Amino acid sequence: MYNAKMEELGKKRSVIREIFEYSKKREAEIGPGKVFDFSIGNPSVPAPDCVNETAVRLIKECDSVELHGYTSAQGDAGVRKAVADYVNRTCGASLTPDCIYMTCGAAASLSVCIKALAEEGDEFIVFTPFFPEYRVFTEAAGGTLVTVDSLPDTFQPDIEALDRAIGPRTKALILNSPNNPSGAVINEESVKRVCGLLRRRSAELGRPVFIISDEPYRELVYDKETVVPYIPNEYDDTFVCYSFSKSMSLPGERIGYVAVSPKMKDFADAYAAVCGAGRALGYVCAPSLFQRVTAKCLGAVSDTSVYRRNRDLLYGELTRMGYSCVYPDGAFYLFMKTPEPDAAAFCERAKKYELLLVPSDDFGRPGYVRIAYCVETEKIRAALPAFEALIKEYK
Amino acid sequence: MYNAKMEELGKKRSVIREIFEYSKKREAEIGPGKVFDFSIGNPSVPAPDCVNETAVRLIKECDSVELHGYTSAQGDAGVRKAVADYVNRTCGASLTPDCIYMTCGAAASLSVCIKALAEEGDEFIVFTPFFPEYRVFTEAAGGTLVTVDSLPDTFQPDIEALDRAIGPRTKALILNSPNNPSGAVINEESVKRVCGLLRRRSAELGRPVFIISDEPYRELVYDKETVVPYIPNEYDDTFVCYSFSKSMSLPGERIGYVAVSPKMKDFADAYAAVCGAGRALGYVCAPSLFQRVTAKCLGAVSDTSVYRRNRDLLYGELTRMGYSCVYPDGAFYLFMKTPEPDAAAFCERAKKYELLLVPSDDFGRPGYVRIAYCVETEKIRAALPAFEALIKEYK
Repeated sequence: MYNAKMEELGKKRSVIREIFEYSKKREAEIGPGKVFDFSIGNPSVPAPDCVNETAVRLIKECDSVELHGYTSAQGDAGVRKAVADYVNRTCGASLTPDCIYMTCGAAASLSVCIKALAEEGDEFIVFTPFFPEYRVFTEAAGGTLVTVDSLPDTFQPDIEALDRAIGPRTKALILNSPNNPSGAVINEESVKRVCGLLRRRSAELGRPVFIISDEPYRELVYDKETVVPYIPNEYDDTFVCYSFSKSMSLPGERIGYVAVSPKMKDFADAYAAVCGAGRALGYVCAPSLFQRVTAKCLGAVSDTSVYRRNRDLLYGELTRMGYSCVYPDGAFYLFMKTPEPDAAAFCERAKKYELLLVPSDDFGRPGYVRIAYCVETEKIRAALPAFEALIKEYK
Repeated sequence: MYNAKMEELGKKRSVIREIFEYSKKREAEIGPGKVFDFSIGNPSVPAPDCVNETAVRLIKECDSVELHGYTSAQGDAGVRKAVADYVNRTCGASLTPDCIYMTCGAAASLSVCIKALAEEGDEFIVFTPFFPEYRVFTEAAGGTLVTVDSLPDTFQPDIEALDRAIGPRTKALILNSPNNPSGAVINEESVKRVCGLLRRRSAELGRPVFIISDEPYRELVYDKETVVPYIPNEYDDTFVCYSFSKSMSLPGERIGYVAVSPKMKDFADAYAAVCGAGRALGYVCAPSLFQRVTAKCLGAVSDTSVYRRNRDLLYGELTRMGYSCVYPDGAFYLFMKTPEPDAAAFCERAKKYELLLVPSDDFGRPGYVRIAYCVETEKIRAALPAFEALIKEYK
């Protein structure tokens, strides 16, 4: 009666959202502060002052009809110019306003790009571990997600495995750096090797294999030496999916963009396909107030020093206790090996200590948990005894 | 290389958006106020004071992390409760918060509902004239749009024609009252007859034919005697798609909801399918600030007296000049017969007078234009000589 796949998707929900709902329920039962919920990537630091100040100023000063009215489907022209200029300045890109398509956040950016590209049966490759909704968006557009394990320990792309995975139906490679859930940043050398391979294979196929670069964590890196390469500088056929959710702590406001590289093959067709996909999915203009707010605050980033502090504390303590995890360069996730192979079983055991962790199975890389450390540092400190008691069960 | 259908959709754009873009360009050429743009349903009156005041207050008083953070995928629980209570109070419904799914506006509400229902090849019936994006959303979900002409002159549903159109693949009937583009309100008698027919045909088919009731103009009616029936009171298997765009003059903010009737067959499956469709299309939570703002301002409606004044002025003057149009009970559109059969040719001719009207072909009812009178009354007055000169060409 209802679409079977949609019903199933709605019933399963994402594991992360499932835990999020459990967490709310559990906290209502045992009281605030008693649940150590490390499940969801909801920024824990406020938006930069600029954001809330600008929102208030615009509401007070602007004409309500203009401010809250429709913008062009692809976003307000002034907003798109500001975004293009900013990316050009900071990443050395050469975008025009007509390369930018404003969206309702990262999920919209991704589903629009995938829908713009996918014909029935097309393959989209992603390295594990990966954000599970990639599969949902790909399958909803009629495509198939093909997974390739990134290298053990470093989580850098495995070039040989990627080479083997590319076939006649490969439409695009989805890159996500800094990575959710591993925190890994794809380094410059890896980017060059991936792009070199894709150029070679595209030439063989006689058509581009595209890159969809999902970058909501671009600004969230913590060490001076960490550089997040801007993929379109290395590879022409790239769509960049961006969201202000993490950098400006605005996940609920649903605001981001797609940047279509102007050097892309048949650029006008590509941009049209993005616009068409937005239309087909029911996206018309991104939320108008926050289009303006973010455009006026470009470059403002929430105070991420707490994330760095959390990362250092958590990484240091967990490895001291005997857990094994990769040092995360960015994002706000720690990807930790579970002391038993079944991550879901480990997470169930963690629940006894009110520790809510996300098992890695849905990230396509069994045997890990994702720990979102975008929480108050105090919460991490309070949770450490629970982590310690938990690992003792395995000793 | 790109999805052919998306590329085509992006290149064609909707006729309305096409004119909207032309209008901006033309105004830049000949100066502000010189273009009589009646093309787009962008409210011309400000949001109710409550909206902007509440937005400022929430930004100033609330914790930024909480205010701009993710809500549950289906929307904040408190917001959904407020919406359910309000609809119950004003429409005699019996919704619980778990019947409500908050969305990024009407387009999202519709595309989510259609995606939740459609299996490949399913048919969705709509009466002409109809909002052209229904076709886009239906086809994007793998369905087919079947059109049935509403009755001439009154634009009430043609029950016999609907009966003939229902077949083994019919999944749902889309109703839109007050109607875009005709302004017609489906009266109580018509609603009862449509629902009676659907009940009979559903029984024959052994499964429900659903109603998707698209109601963004519910509050925009201008005569005391005009009642907009609440469809779920007459028909259990109904999804109501609502948006605050028109009633609160917030089209750019993308905020609305789907209400799934609790009496629907297999309600839990239906609601799950809506959640799943939202997820598949990349909608996660509706914009969080405006979820809260609209929930706190339920019942507040922009001052629509200007629309009534505009309707009366425009209808009076155009019929006086010799144009023929149906008296619109609601929404802010006048649907006018063109004095030549080719509406597009008429609109081209109108452009000479800087009059921008939308030809009715894409609304599935050739030979009309849609005139959006959600503009300043002064603009209508200023445009009257142009309308007069235009009809003289046909005399």
